Amino acid sequence: MSKSSLHLALIHSPVLNRNGDTVSAALTTIDLHDIARAALTYGADGFYVVTPFEDQQALAEKVIDHWVRGAGGTLNPDRKAALALVEVAASFEEVCARIKEREAGGMVNIATSAKDGHENTISVADLSRMLAEGGAYVLNFGTAWGLSGEFIAKCDYVLAPIKGRGAYNHLSVRSAVSIYLDRIVNFQ
Amino acid sequence: MSKSSLHLALIHSPVLNRNGDTVSAALTTIDLHDIARAALTYGADGFYVVTPFEDQQALAEKVIDHWVRGAGGTLNPDRKAALALVEVAASFEEVCARIKEREAGGMVNIATSAKDGHENTISVADLSRMLAEGGAYVLNFGTAWGLSGEFIAKCDYVLAPIKGRGAYNHLSVRSAVSIYLDRIVNFQ
Repeated sequence: MSKSSLHLALIHSPVLNRNGDTVSAALTTIDLHDIARAALTYGADGFYVVTPFEDQQALAEKVIDHWVRGAGGTLNPDRKAALALVEVAASFEEVCARIKEREAGGMVNIATSAKDGHENTISVADLSRMLAEGGAYVLNFGTAWGLSGEFIAKCDYVLAPIKGRGAYNHLSVRSAVSIYLDRIVNFQ
Repeated sequence: MSKSSLHLALIHSPVLNRNGDTVSAALTTIDLHDIARAALTYGADGFYVVTPFEDQQALAEKVIDHWVRGAGGTLNPDRKAALALVEVAASFEEVCARIKEREAGGMVNIATSAKDGHENTISVADLSRMLAEGGAYVLNFGTAWGLSGEFIAKCDYVLAPIKGRGAYNHLSVRSAVSIYLDRIVNFQ
């Protein structure tokens, strides 16, 4: 991905709850660790934790601070390196603005979903070809029961769902991010 | 995997701490959720949580019970289905004995490790070929800083480490299980 950059955004609002209502989800701090570790392992260029709530932003910053500047990082430098990738943002628009500030060229927003049938669905192979052409790509992951339809509709593309061996595909967002990164990096 | 079965074992003892000493690790309850969800998504035949400590076994059983027989499963049937896969065992020997009781044929124990250079290392391709030949296979994952050398030496094979894009490969055990399952199922 020398000509392109791949960013991850973990979206806490707007997401779905179990009834399909659009809600905001609380932060799960283990997400920061697991996704940052996967992001660094697979060479992602950024990982944004996106929540509109100031107390949730403060919680995320506290976790990052403990590992990047505090006692956590002294004890565990590998974790420090991973958590140093994490940035907190209030909205997806803020993520886009920050990336545009830093990087020239086009920007492509990609939603992820566990459900089939979205318009503009692309495969990992499609994404790999796009990455080879350059630009900034943001892969958006929903917490709770996934990204809302409204959010997905604002994205340029939807990455095809991860399929296992049967109908069940209720992976954690931590697993889904890890699997997509592995597939994307190993496709190239 | 019609002729064969693939089981996961999450080992809490003997594992390594950050200094390379052999220790026992405490249970992380999110491991049960994430790994059970990945196991069901990818059609694994069993998922064993292995700890010698009775209080830790009781904690695992409490989590399983909440989701399989308690309020959790009523609210979230998908989670119930996943957690129903989890069995608690006191030792790896107990896991082997239970699988042998249920399944005829040979049994192959495979360690996982984030480090290169183990004897009897096999690739996912090798494992896929073995799975096509039948038998029961147990993939062992270490918590904390990974399986102890003593444990790895007792296994028949070691699965090659997951590589990302650089030297950093400090994935969570949750991510590692998910990525290996995706690679194994999609290789076939």
